[in-house]
Amino acid sequence: MAESLAIGIDLGGTQVRAALVEGGTLLARAAEPTDAAGGPEAVLRQMTVLIARVAPEGREVRGIGICSPGPLDSETGTILNIPTLPGWDGLPLRGILAERTGLPVVLENDGIAAAFGEWRHGAGRGLRHLVYVTVSTGIGGGVVLDGRLLHGRRGMAGHVGHLPLAVDGPACACGAPGCFEALASGSALGAAARKAVRGQPESRLSGRDPEGLTARDVVAAAREGDALALRLLGLEARWLGLGFVGLLHLYSPEAIVMGGGVAEAFDLLETEIHATIRSRAMAAFRDVPVMKAGLGGNSGLIGAAALALDGSQGGPR
Amino acid sequence: MAESLAIGIDLGGTQVRAALVEGGTLLARAAEPTDAAGGPEAVLRQMTVLIARVAPEGREVRGIGICSPGPLDSETGTILNIPTLPGWDGLPLRGILAERTGLPVVLENDGIAAAFGEWRHGAGRGLRHLVYVTVSTGIGGGVVLDGRLLHGRRGMAGHVGHLPLAVDGPACACGAPGCFEALASGSALGAAARKAVRGQPESRLSGRDPEGLTARDVVAAAREGDALALRLLGLEARWLGLGFVGLLHLYSPEAIVMGGGVAEAFDLLETEIHATIRSRAMAAFRDVPVMKAGLGGNSGLIGAAALALDGSQGGPR
Repeated sequence: MAESLAIGIDLGGTQVRAALVEGGTLLARAAEPTDAAGGPEAVLRQMTVLIARVAPEGREVRGIGICSPGPLDSETGTILNIPTLPGWDGLPLRGILAERTGLPVVLENDGIAAAFGEWRHGAGRGLRHLVYVTVSTGIGGGVVLDGRLLHGRRGMAGHVGHLPLAVDGPACACGAPGCFEALASGSALGAAARKAVRGQPESRLSGRDPEGLTARDVVAAAREGDALALRLLGLEARWLGLGFVGLLHLYSPEAIVMGGGVAEAFDLLETEIHATIRSRAMAAFRDVPVMKAGLGGNSGLIGAAALALDGSQGGPR
Repeated sequence: MAESLAIGIDLGGTQVRAALVEGGTLLARAAEPTDAAGGPEAVLRQMTVLIARVAPEGREVRGIGICSPGPLDSETGTILNIPTLPGWDGLPLRGILAERTGLPVVLENDGIAAAFGEWRHGAGRGLRHLVYVTVSTGIGGGVVLDGRLLHGRRGMAGHVGHLPLAVDGPACACGAPGCFEALASGSALGAAARKAVRGQPESRLSGRDPEGLTARDVVAAAREGDALALRLLGLEARWLGLGFVGLLHLYSPEAIVMGGGVAEAFDLLETEIHATIRSRAMAAFRDVPVMKAGLGGNSGLIGAAALALDGSQGGPR
């Protein structure tokens, strides 16, 4: 039997992506650079164009799931504030898109949608408790506990990037110091590399513009065996492990699923991540595995589409 | 209509308490010093004696709820490890007590049971999302989200005292450095007082044996206007606020309910707690209130009894 079809939309600050989704598979996809300067109306037009591009012929689409950076209120389907999309505050995105398309629409935080995607169709299939953490420019995530997606007040549970890890640590984009995101995101890894490369002419990282170094460069150099890059990834893995210890103690998942750009280096990070968990977590939490996400960059798209098909998890609660 | 009756048991390292509970009210209570040296069999006998003492005449008791320090596995009703009660590891406490009493028994972590008690009958009535935090010798807690008690793997969600707040901070009882508990518990406040009082002869705290100072002494001196004690409570409130910021970001509750011995000084702490939350939390979380627990030292007893009456929240999940 064919599964039901839904359309997933991933609204990002740089790209809007849409896909026709069946289970864990993308049947069609389309994307455009986000017309952030055009404001909500321009981006809403982009969304309807992308939806038309991926819509199937002769088969019914049951709903649309949108995932977006937060904070947003998934209960009312309203954007609260997206730093990369000025002018959207208070926009009832769910209602507008439902009216324009005539389809049921779900709006969910991108981390929560990705957690749902990994749970239903990715690395977390079959688990009852999992934490999904995406590590890229920032750190976000979502949580499934006791067989249900966690939402909390205004659907804002699972802001895992803003776990305070070092109260006197570096400033986070959110304004507070020492958040997990400020210490362990891809941006933090890039910043650590730019600082560490000074006076290290023997490192492959020194060959490039030191001010332009990114997490991606560190991973590439580490794959070539560069000692400095490997040391930086060791520190990165330690920060990740420390944050994951906090998540284990607070949520008690059966697994932590790691996605985002930095997860591309998961094979280089996992040993030190697990060593940090074994040395820092309470005994009963030490054997919980950290796993690489199974859906790559599509966890959110697939999760949003899956949410559109699942009335019990999406929508008002 | 009379509510159903249940018996709550609070198993602690120093005391075993039992109460006959109707809604949020204790109709009868009994307690004994825990016979820890006698091992599980001696304490099980204490429990059955206490149960007989509080059992009503002529009215039916529907079940027994036990709360205990963890980690324990509330799914199987088994004690995993109680640091203050050696020899209990792996004990199937729920099954044993059910067999001996002929009543349905629920076993729950004390922090989770107290969260349930405060939600159903205390400060959290009517909320859908709350975090309960008990601040005494250690820091424990429990979480209600989306109208349900969080359990997680092995029922171990909500170990809020082991939120890592300062990765290079003081050692926690759990072995890791810088846990919330190591920085903000009553024990940490007492230790801070013992350190701060040196060379402060003008403080009321100096009048006593400086090595015997406790959190209770600090609160008493602060109530008498002692400047050092007030400063120590200011720092305590700041650590509490920093930990609560982490809990807000991770769980997104509508309120944090604070219980435990240190909550007796809630009136002296709340201004600085809220100021810390306003300065450190992300904007969308800043207006979430911290409230004092409504059931005092009975949150766990009342919650355990309430769980015994609520099949959907206790027992196997």
